[in-house]
Amino acid sequence: MKPEEGRKRVIIEGVTPEIDSGKFPIKRIVGDEVIVEADILTDGHDAITCALLYRVEGEENWNEVPMTALVNDRWRSSFIVREQGLYFYTVQGWVDHFKTWSRDLAKRVEAGQNVTVDLLIGAEMVAAAREQAADRDASWLSIFAESLRSGGDEGIRHALSPELARLMSIYRDRRFVTTYDKELVVLVDRERARFGAWYELFPRSCSDIPGQHGTFKDVEKRLDYIATMGFDVLYLPPIHPIGSSFRKGRNNTTETNPDDVGSPWAIGSAEGGHKSIHPALGTLEDFRHLIEAASQYDIELALDIAFQCSPEHPYVTEHPEWFRKRPDRTIQYAENPPKKYQDIYPFDFETEQWRELWEELKSIVKFWAEQGVRIFRVDNPHTKPFPFWEWLITDIKREYPETIFLAEAFTRPRALYGLAKRGFTQSYNYFPWRNTKWELTQYLTELTQTEVREYTGPNLWPNTPDILPEYLQFGGRPAFMARFILAATLGPSYGIYGPAFELCINIPTAQGREEYLDSEKYEIKHWNLDWPDSLQGLITHVNLIRKENPAFHTNHHLRFHHVDNDQIIAYSKSSVDGTNQVLVVVNLDSHYKQSGFITLPLEELGIDPRQPYQAHDLLTDARYLWQGSQNYVELNPQTIPAHIFVIRRKIRTEHDFDYYL
Amino acid sequence: MKPEEGRKRVIIEGVTPEIDSGKFPIKRIVGDEVIVEADILTDGHDAITCALLYRVEGEENWNEVPMTALVNDRWRSSFIVREQGLYFYTVQGWVDHFKTWSRDLAKRVEAGQNVTVDLLIGAEMVAAAREQAADRDASWLSIFAESLRSGGDEGIRHALSPELARLMSIYRDRRFVTTYDKELVVLVDRERARFGAWYELFPRSCSDIPGQHGTFKDVEKRLDYIATMGFDVLYLPPIHPIGSSFRKGRNNTTETNPDDVGSPWAIGSAEGGHKSIHPALGTLEDFRHLIEAASQYDIELALDIAFQCSPEHPYVTEHPEWFRKRPDRTIQYAENPPKKYQDIYPFDFETEQWRELWEELKSIVKFWAEQGVRIFRVDNPHTKPFPFWEWLITDIKREYPETIFLAEAFTRPRALYGLAKRGFTQSYNYFPWRNTKWELTQYLTELTQTEVREYTGPNLWPNTPDILPEYLQFGGRPAFMARFILAATLGPSYGIYGPAFELCINIPTAQGREEYLDSEKYEIKHWNLDWPDSLQGLITHVNLIRKENPAFHTNHHLRFHHVDNDQIIAYSKSSVDGTNQVLVVVNLDSHYKQSGFITLPLEELGIDPRQPYQAHDLLTDARYLWQGSQNYVELNPQTIPAHIFVIRRKIRTEHDFDYYL
Repeated sequence: MKPEEGRKRVIIEGVTPEIDSGKFPIKRIVGDEVIVEADILTDGHDAITCALLYRVEGEENWNEVPMTALVNDRWRSSFIVREQGLYFYTVQGWVDHFKTWSRDLAKRVEAGQNVTVDLLIGAEMVAAAREQAADRDASWLSIFAESLRSGGDEGIRHALSPELARLMSIYRDRRFVTTYDKELVVLVDRERARFGAWYELFPRSCSDIPGQHGTFKDVEKRLDYIATMGFDVLYLPPIHPIGSSFRKGRNNTTETNPDDVGSPWAIGSAEGGHKSIHPALGTLEDFRHLIEAASQYDIELALDIAFQCSPEHPYVTEHPEWFRKRPDRTIQYAENPPKKYQDIYPFDFETEQWRELWEELKSIVKFWAEQGVRIFRVDNPHTKPFPFWEWLITDIKREYPETIFLAEAFTRPRALYGLAKRGFTQSYNYFPWRNTKWELTQYLTELTQTEVREYTGPNLWPNTPDILPEYLQFGGRPAFMARFILAATLGPSYGIYGPAFELCINIPTAQGREEYLDSEKYEIKHWNLDWPDSLQGLITHVNLIRKENPAFHTNHHLRFHHVDNDQIIAYSKSSVDGTNQVLVVVNLDSHYKQSGFITLPLEELGIDPRQPYQAHDLLTDARYLWQGSQNYVELNPQTIPAHIFVIRRKIRTEHDFDYYL
Repeated sequence: MKPEEGRKRVIIEGVTPEIDSGKFPIKRIVGDEVIVEADILTDGHDAITCALLYRVEGEENWNEVPMTALVNDRWRSSFIVREQGLYFYTVQGWVDHFKTWSRDLAKRVEAGQNVTVDLLIGAEMVAAAREQAADRDASWLSIFAESLRSGGDEGIRHALSPELARLMSIYRDRRFVTTYDKELVVLVDRERARFGAWYELFPRSCSDIPGQHGTFKDVEKRLDYIATMGFDVLYLPPIHPIGSSFRKGRNNTTETNPDDVGSPWAIGSAEGGHKSIHPALGTLEDFRHLIEAASQYDIELALDIAFQCSPEHPYVTEHPEWFRKRPDRTIQYAENPPKKYQDIYPFDFETEQWRELWEELKSIVKFWAEQGVRIFRVDNPHTKPFPFWEWLITDIKREYPETIFLAEAFTRPRALYGLAKRGFTQSYNYFPWRNTKWELTQYLTELTQTEVREYTGPNLWPNTPDILPEYLQFGGRPAFMARFILAATLGPSYGIYGPAFELCINIPTAQGREEYLDSEKYEIKHWNLDWPDSLQGLITHVNLIRKENPAFHTNHHLRFHHVDNDQIIAYSKSSVDGTNQVLVVVNLDSHYKQSGFITLPLEELGIDPRQPYQAHDLLTDARYLWQGSQNYVELNPQTIPAHIFVIRRKIRTEHDFDYYL
C-alpha cells in the first residue's frame, strides 16, 4: 500500500452510467448532458465533498464539477458534451475536514458551548490552507486565521462566513482524495446519429423509362421528391458490379434469364469489387456528383457495406487465402444447411491472413469515406466477428469522427447489443415484428428506459426490401399509415424502403412469408409515384411535425400511457428542456374505428388538474379542450388512424388572444 | 493485437455473480453450489461450446465444467465449494467447428443431399484432433477419420456417433478460445458463518450472589442454561479493564459513584488494554478455560472488538501519535456535536503512523485468535476506515480462515453493504426497526433476493443492550414471542441479548427512547432466570425446530405469501434440496386475535392442487389438512402468536400408516 493509501477514507461505488465495468463507452450527441451518479461515502460522521471530473480527448487537465448529495450516500452531477469524439469522466471524493468542522462549530455555537479551542482548530486548518495560496487569497486566509485565533463573536462570524468556506474549498487538503478506479468514456456523435428520417431506394429502378436500368443521374432527378417528403438520409443498396455465376433470377429463383440484373448484394465481377461502381449506374464521378447534388437538398447519402463476394469477385482470385477451401478444391459458399447460397462466398475470418483481410475491408470503408460518404448501413454485421467491427469502427471514427454506422443486426438481442457496444451508432431491431400494444410498449421501454439506451441507437423501419411484415400485408393503407406514424414518432431515427412503402405495396411471395412478391432485390421496378393513394402527403406532413417538435428528437422521456382499449396505444415525449410536449395516439386496428379513455399522469407532465389544457392534433389541426387525467379519443383507420397532439398548458388569461402554449 | 486475438470470435458478457466488476468476492458456505451464468455468443451461425472454470486457491489447474445453454445466449453451470478459503472462477467459450459440422451434416443427410465432400471436411478435423491424442484415443480417431473419408452410410453413422463427439470434445482445437477477462473470487466460510443462534450476556452479571461482580467461572455455570436453550454462539461484551476517568454512572449519567462498574466499551486502564482481561472477571487462564468449557456444550465464544480507548488506556501514553491532539494539548475525545463523550478517545486513522496503528490493532485480533477465539463481533466498524477493515480481515482470515466477523453496522445501507463487501461475514441490520408486514417483506426481500445476498450475511437481533425497540416496549410477552420467532425463522443467523430478552424486560429510560432503563451497560444485574413467564421454553423449542429443519439453515428460498390481513405475515422457505418445506405464519398484532386466508403458490411449492396436504405446526404439534392455494389461519397472541408449519405432501396411499412426508 502506498504511503497515502491507508488514509484515503472515502469509497466510491455504483458509478452510473458504466457499461460492462467500463469496457465500452456510453454514447451521446453533441450538446447532450451526461448525468453521472455514484455511491460515495466514508467512515464515521465526517462530511465529504465529491466532484465529477471530465475532459475531452486530447485535453490534459480534468474539468471539475461539484457533485450534489441525493439520498442514501448517492451523489450526482453532470456535464455537457460540446464536441464530437471521446470524452472521459470519473469521480472523486474526500473527507472535508473544514466542512465537518464548520458544521460542528455551528452546532456547538447553537448549544451555547465555549468554542475557543474549536476556533483554534479551525485556525490551524486555515493557516495550512494559506500555505498553498498566493496574493490576495493568501492575505485573506491570514486574516481569517488570525481572527479565528482571536476568538469571540468576530472569530465565530468569520469562521462560518461563506467567503472563508469558498477559500477553503479552493485551497483544500488534496492528500487523501479517493479517485474512482476507472476512467469511463463517452462517445459523442453529431445529431444525425440520433435524429433523422431515412429513405432507401434502388438506383436501378429510378429511370423514367420502364425496364431501363436507372443511373445515378436518375437518382438525382428523384432527389426533389425525397427532399420534399422531408427525408434526411438517402440509403442506397450496394452500387458495385454484380456477379453472374449462380446469379439469382426474379423472385430469388436459381434459374436466370440473360436479362436478369441480379441481387446488388452479390458483389463483384470482372468489372470490379467493393471499390468499384456498377457500370450501368454510372461512374465514380457521377457518384460524387450525386453526393453533391443530394447535399444541396440537405440529404446525406448512406452506402451499403456488405462484406461478402460473388464467385467472380477479384478477391477470389487475388486473395484465395481469405476464403475457406473445401477438400474438393472449391471455395466454401454461404450456407444455412440444407440451404445453399452458391452465389455468395463469405470471407473466412479465421484465415491465417486475418490481419490483411481486416486491413483490406477497412480500406473499403475508407475508400468511400474519401468519396464523401459519412453514413454506412452495414449488411449482416452479426455474421462477422465482434472484435473486427470494434477495431474497424474505432479506426474509421478516429479519422472521420462524424461517421455513422447502422447495423443491419436482425439477430438475437445479445448480438444486436454486442454490436452496438462495439461501435455501431444505430441498429435495425425488432420493430417490424412488434405490432400489438403490449409488444410495442415492452420493446420500446426496453430500448429507451433501460441501460441499453446508453449505447443502442434504434432506427425503426416498418419495411425493408427483405421484410414485408404480416401486419402490412393484411391491413391495407391504414396499416401502412399506422406503422409509419409509429416508426416516425417512436423513433428519433426511422426509415422506409420506398417507393414500395409509400405506394403501400403489400403482396408477399406466398401466405405466411414476409418476402415481397417480384422483389426489387432481383429486378428493375418502375414505380408509379403519382398513385393517388400514395402516402407521400402524410409522410411530408409527419416529417415536418418531427422537425418542428424537438420532443421527437430524443426518446429519453418516452412514456406509455394507459388506454382502456388494447387497440389504442398512447405515448408522450418531451423535449430535453421540457417545453415541447407531444402525445401520440394510434389505433392499431386497421379495420375498425376504436375509441377509449386515455389516462395521463398530469403531475409528471406538469399539468394543473384543475385547469383545462389543449390537445392540438398536428395532423388534422383539430384542437381538443381536455381537463383532468382521463380524456376520450376516437380514431377511424379509414380516415387517419392517429393523433399527433402537442400538449399546450393554459398560461394566459382570457384577455390574451392565444390561451395555450 | 496478439496473433490469435483477431480470431477469437466468441464474446463473453454479463457474468453473474460478479460484485463491482469483480473487485469483491461473493460468499458461500462449505458445501454450497456456486451457480454461474454468462451471455456467451459468436458471430454467424456457428455452434459454440462454453465451460465454467474454477479452482481453489493454491491449486494450479482449473477444473472445467461444461455450461448449458438457456435462452437468449445465456449459459449456466455450477460447482460445489468443498473447502474453506478462496475459490476462483471464470468462463470460457469457443466456436466449436466439429459441433457445427455435425449439426449441419445431420440436416444435410435429412434433406437427402450428397455429403461426400462434407464427410471429407469432417475427416480433416478428425485427423487434426488425432495429432493431439495418444494411445487408444489416437487409434480410434484414425479409424474414424478413415471411415469418414470412405464415406457412405457407414461414414455418416460414424460421423454422427456419440463416441466421435466425445473424442472430438477432448481433443478440440484450443487456439481461439475466449476466456472472460476477470477471475472472480468466492470466499468460502464454514457453516456457522450463515447458520447459528447467538446469545449475548454480560459476564459480570452472572454471579449467583446479587451485586457481586460475576466472573468467567460464573459464566461457565451459566453454560448449561444457554446450551439447553440451543444456542451456538455465546457473545461477550468487552472483557478488558475499564477506564475510570469520565466513567459513566448508572443510566449513562456523568456522575459516578465509587461502586459504579462503568461501561465495558470504555476500554483500558492502568491494568491494561485490549489484550488484557478485567481482573474482576478472572485471568487469561480462566478465559481459555471458559472457551474450553463452552466447546463441551458445542458453544463457541464470540468476543467484542471495540477499537477505542478510555483516557487511561496504555496506548494513550505509549502511542500519543495515534490520537488527535487539540490545540490546548488535550486529546480529542469522541463527539457528536454538541454531545461529548469524554470517556472515549477514538483512534486517529489519519495519523502519519497509520501503518503502526493498523498493525497494532490487527495484533489485538490475532492475540485473541491465539487464545482460541474464532468469532468477533466488531463494535461500530463504520467509524473506522473501510480500507482498514478490508486489510485486517483479509490478513486474519489468511491465518485463521474459519474466523467470523459480525459487524455492528447500525449505519446507512451503503456503509453496511460496503463493510460486508470488504470482508465482514455478518452484519446487524435494520431488523429491530422493521415491524410491520410491509417493512419486513421489503427488507428481507432486499437482503435475500437481490445482489446483496451474495456478500451480506444478515444476523437478526430483536434486541441488543443498546436497543429496546418500541414494538417490544408496548406489546408485552406476545411481542417478545413474535419478534423472537421472526428473528429465528427469518434469519439463519439471529441473536438475542439475554437474559433481558427471555425475561421480557421492556422498560425504556423514557417514552420515545430505545435505551433500557437501568441498563446493564452501566451496572451489574442479577437476573431471575426462574421467572415463570420466561421465554426459555419457547426459545428451546424454536432452536430445536431450527436445527431439525434444514429449510431454516438458508434464506435462498425465502418467499413471502399473500394474507388478506395486514397483521398476519406468512413466508415459506425450503432446504437447498427442496425436501424440507416450512411455512411460518406470525400474528404481528400483540394484542388481538387475528385471522385470515393465506394464498400459497402451490405449483412453486410442488403441491398438487387436487390433493390435500398437511400443515404440521411444529410449535403445537397440531396438524391441519389443507387443500388448494387458500387456507384459513387464526392466531391468538395471548397463547402463541405464530405457526411454524412443516408442509407435507401426500405421497402414500390409504394403505400406509403415515400419509404425509
